[in-house]
Amino acid sequence: MPSQPRPKPAEFHVFDTTLRDGSQQEGLNLSVPDKLTIAALLDELGVGFIEGGWPGANPNDTSFFAAMADGALRLQNAQLVAFGFTRRVGMKAADDPMTAAVRDSRAPIACIVAKSHDRHVEHALRTTLAENLAMISDTVRHLRAEGQRVFVDCEHFFDGYRENPAYALEAVRAAAEAGAEVVVLCDTNGGMLPPWIGEIVTAANEVGVPLGIHTHNDSGCAVANALAAVDAGVMHVQGTVNGYGERTGNAELLSVIANLELKYGWPLLPAGSLREATRLAHAIAEVTNVPPSARQPYVGLSSFAHKAGLHASAIKVDPNLYQHIDPALVGNDMRMLVSEMAGRANIQIKGEELGFDLSDRELAARITDRVKDAEAAGYTYEAADASFELLLRRELGQLSEYFQVHSWRVFTQSTHGQETDTECTVRLTAKGQSQRVVGEGNGPVNALDHALRNALRPAYPAVERLELIDYKVRILDQGHGTDATVRVLIQTTDGLSAWTTVGVGQNIIEASWEALCDAYLYGLIHADDEVAAPQISQQRVPLGA
Amino acid sequence: MPSQPRPKPAEFHVFDTTLRDGSQQEGLNLSVPDKLTIAALLDELGVGFIEGGWPGANPNDTSFFAAMADGALRLQNAQLVAFGFTRRVGMKAADDPMTAAVRDSRAPIACIVAKSHDRHVEHALRTTLAENLAMISDTVRHLRAEGQRVFVDCEHFFDGYRENPAYALEAVRAAAEAGAEVVVLCDTNGGMLPPWIGEIVTAANEVGVPLGIHTHNDSGCAVANALAAVDAGVMHVQGTVNGYGERTGNAELLSVIANLELKYGWPLLPAGSLREATRLAHAIAEVTNVPPSARQPYVGLSSFAHKAGLHASAIKVDPNLYQHIDPALVGNDMRMLVSEMAGRANIQIKGEELGFDLSDRELAARITDRVKDAEAAGYTYEAADASFELLLRRELGQLSEYFQVHSWRVFTQSTHGQETDTECTVRLTAKGQSQRVVGEGNGPVNALDHALRNALRPAYPAVERLELIDYKVRILDQGHGTDATVRVLIQTTDGLSAWTTVGVGQNIIEASWEALCDAYLYGLIHADDEVAAPQISQQRVPLGA
Repeated sequence: MPSQPRPKPAEFHVFDTTLRDGSQQEGLNLSVPDKLTIAALLDELGVGFIEGGWPGANPNDTSFFAAMADGALRLQNAQLVAFGFTRRVGMKAADDPMTAAVRDSRAPIACIVAKSHDRHVEHALRTTLAENLAMISDTVRHLRAEGQRVFVDCEHFFDGYRENPAYALEAVRAAAEAGAEVVVLCDTNGGMLPPWIGEIVTAANEVGVPLGIHTHNDSGCAVANALAAVDAGVMHVQGTVNGYGERTGNAELLSVIANLELKYGWPLLPAGSLREATRLAHAIAEVTNVPPSARQPYVGLSSFAHKAGLHASAIKVDPNLYQHIDPALVGNDMRMLVSEMAGRANIQIKGEELGFDLSDRELAARITDRVKDAEAAGYTYEAADASFELLLRRELGQLSEYFQVHSWRVFTQSTHGQETDTECTVRLTAKGQSQRVVGEGNGPVNALDHALRNALRPAYPAVERLELIDYKVRILDQGHGTDATVRVLIQTTDGLSAWTTVGVGQNIIEASWEALCDAYLYGLIHADDEVAAPQISQQRVPLGA
Repeated sequence: MPSQPRPKPAEFHVFDTTLRDGSQQEGLNLSVPDKLTIAALLDELGVGFIEGGWPGANPNDTSFFAAMADGALRLQNAQLVAFGFTRRVGMKAADDPMTAAVRDSRAPIACIVAKSHDRHVEHALRTTLAENLAMISDTVRHLRAEGQRVFVDCEHFFDGYRENPAYALEAVRAAAEAGAEVVVLCDTNGGMLPPWIGEIVTAANEVGVPLGIHTHNDSGCAVANALAAVDAGVMHVQGTVNGYGERTGNAELLSVIANLELKYGWPLLPAGSLREATRLAHAIAEVTNVPPSARQPYVGLSSFAHKAGLHASAIKVDPNLYQHIDPALVGNDMRMLVSEMAGRANIQIKGEELGFDLSDRELAARITDRVKDAEAAGYTYEAADASFELLLRRELGQLSEYFQVHSWRVFTQSTHGQETDTECTVRLTAKGQSQRVVGEGNGPVNALDHALRNALRPAYPAVERLELIDYKVRILDQGHGTDATVRVLIQTTDGLSAWTTVGVGQNIIEASWEALCDAYLYGLIHADDEVAAPQISQQRVPLGA
């Protein structure tokens, strides 16, 4: 049997740097309200420390700290940390305006980044090794004297240790002797591997100061590197929610926390908080506007999704045979995907999730055949949960016809020097009333969407609430050029939840039309769910998930 | 100083399972042509083994192995592997149709998955522990006798070892004694952490058979887990390109390879191949149509991108101060995010590759600005090499007008109970002759393709040789539904080589038309290349790449 993880240290810091190092990610730009919202979510998660930014270095961060100091948000669990640099070369800490900005941020804790790699001191900072140590010492002493608790990030510590171990340890010692509470060893370039982290942290333990770890994912090992440091004795771990950060990102903090809570058995967050991890990770992604990764460990949309028919039959026996933890522990769900690899067991489980009784073997087998035929023709129900439900309802005779389409036409024209023009007509009957409506739009599908909505509105005012929020096209049968089968996925929302429908055809417009009609049909079927049938509306994917 | 990695074993397997386990990913569905294209790219990367799928279990995989056996693709570096299961309970291996499918796939190697976790044998397989061992032994012996090399994947090995170590090792022994060349220890549920992997692999070494490792990313440690197994002595590592796979995905194979090649100093791929990793990872993502992660270690678009500021001046002094490896080693580039897109140097190099002299700084800067503007509007030239060449020719005044389009119109009509009908007209001038041509097709783009070809044929009979072989659509600006910007990529061949063009617009037909016209224009420019200028035709992508 493998050895047990070491017991949890008496004091252990979960330190979030989403708002500081996470915001170094390409394309991620946070306003002050964004930062306040994320800070509230992080506090709800229950991290111990929120590094809010670098006051003095950019106006947004300065304003965020001012807003926090003015009580814009009262933290329940976390303490606020201001990031800063060691004082400038040849200057007194008290005179450095950047050090002043950290001090004046009114954050109870300062986290000061210091050079610990000799080559960086000489080539980037362009000063002597001794002056760098004095800069560390002076800055820590000054901020301590001014009443802040101080953590020190030793930048490039691991690379530095490999080239000049004595100097790297000197930097740690200078910070500790000046009063730093924790010295954080940083794999700034992210190139380390877990055994190297373990050995170097073990060596750094000789300084006798509480140590922390800050890792990046450049070798694909950020989480494992953080754990290797924990195994070697650090009592403070830094990371970002959703792994945001420069280049490949920082250690994904929720994965680190979940590993420590669920695999090491260490309680780190307030009781019950880990069960909010999936919701909070997605809520933070809504604020950053970075699409969440479906494959993100623990909290991804796909992280407990099973496709193989092989697994499905076993999962019916015991779900834990095919999952490493109970997904409810992190607020996630197991999902069975309906696909050509799936057998009857998948279809039955999926049907039950949607509230249909498919226990009849013959019925389940017939539906499985229908799904296989449809998938062979290019349909996919993995993503298109709404189309799967419509298929089930058709097979079960539980689908009322909300409208009958008689015909549609769409016309696009382009003349050199003029804007491309698209127009369409749709003819349908809804609640016995015949409608013939014209639509226009940026493209043919957009025009058809407008026309269909206008044709349905008199009979079903509820279509007003429906909005198409995503449209995806996939060409099947590569190698056939423009004469190929096309699959269209459309995601639609009613403001409360969202659902996806699929259409397939050789004509992209025809495929889009099919997905479009099913999108509205599903929306109409569930238009009264919120009042009448909450047990079905629960099955729909919540917005943002 | 940390200890050195162990020396490379005399034999070491890089085993890719993108086409088998990778295709278990939610939303990832591969056609036979997709599989052939990806197999060609993996072979170009130089992996030793390509697990192509599960013949007999689904029709696409069966067809893929038939196509490979019929010579659809000749592998230069890799060997093809067919995945299968141990024989059914109570059946002779020779009589099991699933075993027969693996044998009859004509793949030189079979990789057979076997249960090694006692609870899975009893609850999922519903047989005795002894029968499971007999199933392993019989299946391996049968396939060996029929002439296949055999690897065995021990499913849930690590979870199984933690509950019943003796039985897990029995399964390994049964496989080895029956003639399995490698026994692969699988963390099927992905819940392991690196130290546990290391300890359990070390224990399994006692069986004395060459071992492999197969990991998943459920704890965020798939790459580190694979490396921990390598450190403990395995000689075979499995993974998928871009980390595709069920739930959180498999170990990302390029990260594993890059770590072993660049950090352990082990040569694994053919010389120079690792420098193609970024291109190949993105090419595979084009085929799967799964948007690549910008943060993916080594090969991500952002993986060597630095936000301006703190790092910028130091990078000017020495780029290696802020990157863990030279990005050129994996075919990636350092990017400073002051300017969002590719820099002048890239454009110059790319231009030279295509045979254009861009050494003039001002000219190169002007073209760089054009590229940046186009990329901001949604164009991409990473895949669309032909459109990039047309852009260069336009800027250099080296583009003759082969034809002038005056107008086009396209009309699609659907009436209930009848087939959808599409018709278009195109009006253009070619070699002074005005043409007005009507076209029909399965869809609007197919109809326009026919009309354009017919309109060009009188002036340029060479269009007869051109064929559109791929058509891809990506919706940009997710979240805008059908009212979004659309990017179309069209791949065209003249039977000797293939090239890709790009079109962008809010109207999918307009975007397709742009890519279509450029596809024909590029084809006409190069119509005589094979005789006149082979040095240019070399630059075009060979078919199947």
